[in-house]
Amino acid sequence: MLTKENIADWFKQLQDDICQKLEKTDSVGKFKQDEWERPGGGGGRSRVLTEGKIIEKGGVNFSAVEGKTPEKILKALHLDSADFFATGVSIVLHPHNPFVPIIHMNVRYFEMSNGVWWFGGGIDLTPHYIDEDDASFFHKQLKNVCDKHDSDYYDKFKKWADDYFYIKHRKETRGIGGIFFDRLNQDSGKSKEEIFAFVQDVGKTFAPTYTHFMSKNHDLDYNEDNIAWQKLRRGRYVEFNLVWDKGTKFGLETDGRTESILMSLPPQANWEYDHTPIEGSQEEETLKQLKKGIDWIN
Amino acid sequence: MLTKENIADWFKQLQDDICQKLEKTDSVGKFKQDEWERPGGGGGRSRVLTEGKIIEKGGVNFSAVEGKTPEKILKALHLDSADFFATGVSIVLHPHNPFVPIIHMNVRYFEMSNGVWWFGGGIDLTPHYIDEDDASFFHKQLKNVCDKHDSDYYDKFKKWADDYFYIKHRKETRGIGGIFFDRLNQDSGKSKEEIFAFVQDVGKTFAPTYTHFMSKNHDLDYNEDNIAWQKLRRGRYVEFNLVWDKGTKFGLETDGRTESILMSLPPQANWEYDHTPIEGSQEEETLKQLKKGIDWIN
Repeated sequence: MLTKENIADWFKQLQDDICQKLEKTDSVGKFKQDEWERPGGGGGRSRVLTEGKIIEKGGVNFSAVEGKTPEKILKALHLDSADFFATGVSIVLHPHNPFVPIIHMNVRYFEMSNGVWWFGGGIDLTPHYIDEDDASFFHKQLKNVCDKHDSDYYDKFKKWADDYFYIKHRKETRGIGGIFFDRLNQDSGKSKEEIFAFVQDVGKTFAPTYTHFMSKNHDLDYNEDNIAWQKLRRGRYVEFNLVWDKGTKFGLETDGRTESILMSLPPQANWEYDHTPIEGSQEEETLKQLKKGIDWIN
Repeated sequence: MLTKENIADWFKQLQDDICQKLEKTDSVGKFKQDEWERPGGGGGRSRVLTEGKIIEKGGVNFSAVEGKTPEKILKALHLDSADFFATGVSIVLHPHNPFVPIIHMNVRYFEMSNGVWWFGGGIDLTPHYIDEDDASFFHKQLKNVCDKHDSDYYDKFKKWADDYFYIKHRKETRGIGGIFFDRLNQDSGKSKEEIFAFVQDVGKTFAPTYTHFMSKNHDLDYNEDNIAWQKLRRGRYVEFNLVWDKGTKFGLETDGRTESILMSLPPQANWEYDHTPIEGSQEEETLKQLKKGIDWIN
């Protein structure tokens, strides 16, 4: 039988594996680990890499926390009280080179003492400059993972990502999306083992997918204008995470570990009043493609 | 009789007056104006100054908008429908020199077709480095304004500011606070004219108070460490505005004019994982004083 301990152990190994592969590809940066305990129960291992050769700032966090279920979740589920257990891996990486995309991944498992359980997760890519071949490669990787498990997954979870990673007040998607899913459990017609196998494959695709972009793009030439644009795009990343990301908001409101939650923020972000890219520029091209519903594969 | 047009006109003049005085003290920077219209009714004049001698990025915005009352307000007031009118001036200034504080001011008036009306507003100061004499000067200015109108105002509105300008997930106040008040109307025992007179005095104290800090501190020496700290503090400013500030959140959620709302964001902000100032440093001293309930005057 698949227990919460099995799942947490696997996530812990995933963290180890991803950190090792990122360090190898970066060749300079090393993750520093912070172990922390949650006052209400459980804890985590935050790992942060700064000033690598390719990665400027990145975090790969594992946590497994437990205790009394937060009021907000109880209310949503019409429950009076229950204990919960939640474990997962969260990643955000900000590269130096503006032609290497920002990436985010999260895989998570949640269960309660009343027997309710679910998996959630997603991967999405935020290129500072959209390259259509890169975008197609990225979505193909995700589609392959999805198709191995359910022929409906990719379309459904790709749309979910478009809707989730959306900066409503800018009418822009955060990047080229990816996949997003939540509350996946037996109601989907699949067993816990089957869903976990899918989540494992999502986790396993992260390192090969991102190290591909790291290796391929990290020594592309860039100039000051590209860096200025990168910093503005990082500003948008901050706006999404602090204004719209449900996970971030929930964590900050329920007294989560602030430094682990906000490891997603870039080393530096800029804001310029009413910035408008020059007509016909690469920047304008990228902005035009920050829309929902684009089929990146075909 | 005091009409909404009178109030809006006065706010417009306040914007003119403050912009003129800031430009004079800055001596280099000039405000650029953007006039905009709100699809649902009304509009505004956004004014932004960048790369002044003293001010790095700042906005002084006026707006007077009207139309159908947003659902969120109707619900809070248990109303089915009503038209609204809202006018105000909002200011945030980010200086170059880390020894010049960030400042924010807002004065606003709201009324509905059912006769409900109120004033709100506040001023708060966010020094990158707290100087106790400056903090005392600032709070004395505000206390003087308050005392002219009601001997209870300063204590009440100072506490309100401590509670409002609070970065809950950091357990830090945004800065040294100031005053904050909302929904001030006839229920407070004062007439519309009396409350407007108070709001006018709050507005009028802005320019002399901030130009005092600009003149006094803009040529103090600073080094790279001070700039690094300033950028981290600006990161906290971003966190407050995007995660906790009710005005910002309300604006972004109800399709307000994004560029005017987010003019409050700094030109540049940095994040560093788990940054801890050196023991005994000026930075640590400042952090220790970012607490509620400090009596800055005595």
